[in-house]
Amino acid sequence: MTKYVIIGGVAGGATAAARLRRLDEHAEIILFERGQNISYANCGLPYYIGGTITEREKLLVQTPESFRARLNVDVRVLQEVTKIDRDAKQVEIQNHTTGETYLESYDKLVVSPGAEPVKPPIPGINDHSIFTLRNVSDTDRIKSFCDDHQPRRAVVVGAGFIGLEMAENLHQLGMNVTIVEMASQVMAPLDYEMAAEVHQHLKTKQVEFYLKDGVNAFTRKGNSLSVQLQSGRELETDMVILSIGVRPETKLVREAGLELAENGGIKVNEYLQTNDPNIYALGDAIAFPHPITGNYVNTYLAGPANKQGRIVADNLVMNNTRKYKGAIATAIAKVFDLTVASTGLSAKALKREGIDYVSNIIHGSSHAGYYPGALPYTLKILFHPENGKLYGAQMIGYKGIDKRIDLIATVLMNNGSIYDLQEIEHAYAPPYSSAKDPVNQAGYVAENILTGRLKNINWVEVSKLHAPQICLLDVRTPSEHQLGHIEGSINVEVDQLRQRLSEIPRDKKIIVYCGVGIRGYFACRILMQNGFEEVYNLSGGYKTYEHTMC
Amino acid sequence: MTKYVIIGGVAGGATAAARLRRLDEHAEIILFERGQNISYANCGLPYYIGGTITEREKLLVQTPESFRARLNVDVRVLQEVTKIDRDAKQVEIQNHTTGETYLESYDKLVVSPGAEPVKPPIPGINDHSIFTLRNVSDTDRIKSFCDDHQPRRAVVVGAGFIGLEMAENLHQLGMNVTIVEMASQVMAPLDYEMAAEVHQHLKTKQVEFYLKDGVNAFTRKGNSLSVQLQSGRELETDMVILSIGVRPETKLVREAGLELAENGGIKVNEYLQTNDPNIYALGDAIAFPHPITGNYVNTYLAGPANKQGRIVADNLVMNNTRKYKGAIATAIAKVFDLTVASTGLSAKALKREGIDYVSNIIHGSSHAGYYPGALPYTLKILFHPENGKLYGAQMIGYKGIDKRIDLIATVLMNNGSIYDLQEIEHAYAPPYSSAKDPVNQAGYVAENILTGRLKNINWVEVSKLHAPQICLLDVRTPSEHQLGHIEGSINVEVDQLRQRLSEIPRDKKIIVYCGVGIRGYFACRILMQNGFEEVYNLSGGYKTYEHTMC
Ligand SMILES: Cc1cc2nc3c(=O)[nH]c(=O)nc-3n(C[C@H](O)[C@H](O)[C@H](O)COP(=O)(O)OP(=O)(O)OC[C@H]3O[C@@H](n4cnc5c(N)ncnc54)[C@H](O)[C@@H]3O)c2cc1C
Ligand SMILES: Cc1cc2nc3c(=O)[nH]c(=O)nc-3n(C[C@H](O)[C@H](O)[C@H](O)COP(=O)(O)OP(=O)(O)OC[C@H]3O[C@@H](n4cnc5c(N)ncnc54)[C@H](O)[C@@H]3O)c2cc1C
Ligand SMILES: CC(C)(COP(=O)(O)OP(=O)(O)OC[C@H]1O[C@@H](n2cnc3c(N)ncnc32)[C@H](O)[C@@H]1OP(=O)(O)O)[C@@H](O)C(=O)NCCC(=O)NCCS
Ligand SMILES: CC(C)(COP(=O)(O)OP(=O)(O)OC[C@H]1O[C@@H](n2cnc3c(N)ncnc32)[C@H](O)[C@@H]1OP(=O)(O)O)[C@@H](O)C(=O)NCCC(=O)NCCS
Repeated sequence: MTKYVIIGGVAGGATAAARLRRLDEHAEIILFERGQNISYANCGLPYYIGGTITEREKLLVQTPESFRARLNVDVRVLQEVTKIDRDAKQVEIQNHTTGETYLESYDKLVVSPGAEPVKPPIPGINDHSIFTLRNVSDTDRIKSFCDDHQPRRAVVVGAGFIGLEMAENLHQLGMNVTIVEMASQVMAPLDYEMAAEVHQHLKTKQVEFYLKDGVNAFTRKGNSLSVQLQSGRELETDMVILSIGVRPETKLVREAGLELAENGGIKVNEYLQTNDPNIYALGDAIAFPHPITGNYVNTYLAGPANKQGRIVADNLVMNNTRKYKGAIATAIAKVFDLTVASTGLSAKALKREGIDYVSNIIHGSSHAGYYPGALPYTLKILFHPENGKLYGAQMIGYKGIDKRIDLIATVLMNNGSIYDLQEIEHAYAPPYSSAKDPVNQAGYVAENILTGRLKNINWVEVSKLHAPQICLLDVRTPSEHQLGHIEGSINVEVDQLRQRLSEIPRDKKIIVYCGVGIRGYFACRILMQNGFEEVYNLSGGYKTYEHTMC
Repeated sequence: MTKYVIIGGVAGGATAAARLRRLDEHAEIILFERGQNISYANCGLPYYIGGTITEREKLLVQTPESFRARLNVDVRVLQEVTKIDRDAKQVEIQNHTTGETYLESYDKLVVSPGAEPVKPPIPGINDHSIFTLRNVSDTDRIKSFCDDHQPRRAVVVGAGFIGLEMAENLHQLGMNVTIVEMASQVMAPLDYEMAAEVHQHLKTKQVEFYLKDGVNAFTRKGNSLSVQLQSGRELETDMVILSIGVRPETKLVREAGLELAENGGIKVNEYLQTNDPNIYALGDAIAFPHPITGNYVNTYLAGPANKQGRIVADNLVMNNTRKYKGAIATAIAKVFDLTVASTGLSAKALKREGIDYVSNIIHGSSHAGYYPGALPYTLKILFHPENGKLYGAQMIGYKGIDKRIDLIATVLMNNGSIYDLQEIEHAYAPPYSSAKDPVNQAGYVAENILTGRLKNINWVEVSKLHAPQICLLDVRTPSEHQLGHIEGSINVEVDQLRQRLSEIPRDKKIIVYCGVGIRGYFACRILMQNGFEEVYNLSGGYKTYEHTMC
């Protein structure tokens, strides 16, 4: 009878335990969890605080009791593993209920301790109205603070997905919410022009945000907390959510001498095994080579943690037979009415890695425009400048964003290219898509760029160009032009372009734009095949340009 | 300057024309369309009849005028190509406006004539209240019949997706709708137990349907039309929609001596070229090898037609450089509140082809159960009994059905297996999915079947078993058991099974079931690892069983 000891009882740990039991009914399985709960829905916590999820029990997917009953796992909550003795193959446990410390031996050890919120040593950070959010206890604390103090104002520090989810949920409770973020944009996995759509959306919701700014100090002033920003600005608030990132919990394994990656995650091989063959690790705490860059990275996501749980159990019972292939950080968040999703690498990340890429942005609608209820989306894809291999995608919109990002992630993980996007055979009926799905269209546009049939230019490049050498050509209708256009552009509607070619200067670089890019493309084709050589289409059209400029 | 002539101005033809123009600004492109409109939204027609789409112009994605203006294509509507002279490389045209006939030469010819509704010679079939639906004119006819006669009753003959869409839309107009279908189920691409969910849904909508029945005759009786069924039943109605299938329009190419496949479609090679190298064909009219079976099949879907349009244009201009890979009939339909989707081959189809397969059915919810608004789905997948290569999938539910079928179709078209389903890295946040997406779960369950960790049994097999040799074991809670169970089953809750093993007979085949299959699986694992040998889990649990039995 093998004895498995598992550290951490939530996404990774509980899943590994469950699969272990199904694989081996007779094994001894002990699950240690430092906190009070196992198997809770981390991802649901913000929505319980905001009142969207009304029953607290719903957060507890399994309880120690239900887990014992169904899976015969020896669940020990409020018991923290404080030491791993690899030579003796035993762990030391501190029982937080009794205060006692004891040892437990193992044949195989599974480590899934997760990651903890970063809490920098900013003056005043320990004020009772400043919170981080990781588990059910944190949630209870925030919830009872809200109930007891009825805060009217909240500051969210850090605009990653947890920060934005919290902003939305506190806003839903009726608070005035202000976001403070160090970077020049919210949601780091997005590129700026995509994040700009989120910025606009936050504005429509009356959520204030300060970008490129950080917190210098928190100072209590009676009932208020004052948040001093690096810019000198001062915010008065009733509570603060600190969501500036997480850090893998690796103290325990570090002390046990397990190998860590440079970024601090636990280094594991493709079987999710550490450098100690009797110890496997998974979840937020591990570092694993990124499928595109090969760099060791952490993935702070529940899907990978759950999938790894099953792989670890299989490798334990069936002796390293199942390989983990890494994750490309496919992620999604609801931000008020918007859905924001990303997969793979952004332009920022590609630049950081020194990887050459090309990108394009398209706008369209979630399903056939003639069927009611179609809503706009924006899709950016990034790919290899020659062979079109996919590097990443970002998508924002209201409907069907999840399905497209999943499709692109699947193609990407399969080492696919923009040609694979073209060929995706999607299910089409008017309520669900168009005869060409957005993912197909993104592939088409990408091919036109790769083959030189279309030269794209992006909003940053355009904004840097010098007026005298270029002709900005708006090919939308005169009435669209009147409603708003890029300063200095001339207007020749695409449908009249063939007749009005003489109006277009032949000695200038021509930057064509339309609403979203498609008429611009048609116009570029006409111009390029009529002897105009330097013709560029503004990627994402006026829509993207407008988002980024205001 | 190359001269392209295109026959058929809708999904395939118009798309080919548009891409041709973008590739070659100076080519001569003539588009012949027999009807009044080009580029109309065939797929939207039922919804215009039902009033969901309110403006008729919305159906016309492009008009001859807009198409000319933007793409400089010589669009000739109400002009039917009546003959192809391959030697002279010219076509004969009948102009339905002037009555005149004339010839037009071509360098390359593109044929996208589509498919026409089957209208068998049933007595009375030409009654003015009997309609088929293919184009805008048909739609206008049905719409004005409804406006003029205010029919209260409608019979829909044929329960494919167009039939069901029409049933829904006529029902929405307030009519009593009755469906008549020859097969034992609606929607042929589904297997029976999946279609059974649609049957149940139709019942809740008060839509009557008669299965395994066909029409013998239509007889006018004053203001009513009597529909005599083969069963002897007689239905009185005000109007009839005939939607019993379509047939490729191949008279023209047949007469021109182009090669047809056995099923009657135009045979094309991987470049979508017919046996005449100057003639390409696409859309509903062509037959192409099925990616799984290799048999020539027709695909009556707009997505493939649109995608082929671009491929044909590329091959014309760039000389056969782009291969078409075939389609696996990924399709979807809204049926009242349900979404019904399928891809690849069903069990029926696999049996017909003599291909060995295994299948499983899972039920779950569209997203994390703890987040409000999660709705049930049913997913069936079919795969190779040894290597797990995917053959097909069917999915029914209310939300996120489209995204899962698209993912599975993508894996399938990529020659993927159930192991690829497990690894799909989907975007997860509570409003969109669960940490393990349904597609992952389907892959997990499939693996357990392939590795023998779980033996599945389906509802047909169970219903055939002989009571004395089996023990039907309901592992749900006593209160679930009381609410309804399979006749003759005993009830031992899974969470008590380990303690109550002695109650389970060791000399019988044990059929375990729960609500949907998952607790049943857990119970099977306990039993199998405790020496019970013949243990089977009811695929899809009581839910699927109930659907098929009532
Ligand atoms: C508020 C919030 C929202 C989120 N939303 C999403 C989302 O929408 N989508 C998504 O994909 N991901 C989301 N995540 C991330 C996701 O929850 C994590 O990626 C996932 O839970 C990681 O699983 P894990 O097993 O590595 O760690 P965890 O689930 O954090 O579990 C680790 C457990 O180990 C315990 N532990 C640590 N050390 C010890 C020890 N020494 N002894 C005993 N026990 C120990 C901890 O107490 C903890 O309970 C969210 C996370 C949070 C906090
Ligand atoms: C009511 C309805 C609903 C549908 N819903 C969906 C759906 O939800 N999803 C989906 O994927 N598919 C759907 N389809 C199917 C889809 O519309 C077709 O697969 C697609 O239109 C096929 O394109 P095609 O170019 O082959 O033929 P068509 O689009 O039918 O175009 C062929 C055209 O050629 C013309 N033509 C034929 N012969 C000649 C000739 N000799 N000379 C001149 N012109 C000629 C015809 O008049 C016709 O307009 C639906 C179809 C219908 C009728
Ligand atoms: C609750 C928890 C322990 C469940 O783990 P689990 O039992 O492995 O997962 P599920 O309940 O999804 O069940 C999956 C198993 O059921 C099987 N299954 C699913 N549907 C089935 C069906 N209809 N028929 C038969 N088997 C089925 C799967 O094959 C899989 O078994 P396997 O791994 O042995 O192949 C774990 O997911 C957890 O702790 N979750 C909460 C924490 C968390 O993930 N937080 C982050 C997200 S908010
Ligand atoms: C209307 C119709 C002629 C349009 O054909 P089309 O121009 O090829 O298709 P789209 O309008 O989707 O445009 C696609 C083109 O725009 C390009 N494009 C799309 N979005 C773009 C963007 N944001 N920037 C630049 N280019 C873009 C694509 O690359 C593609 O061009 P390419 O094929 O040269 O690469 C054709 O789809 C049609 O007739 N539809 C109605 C009939 C029908 O399909 N019925 C069945 C379904 S209801």
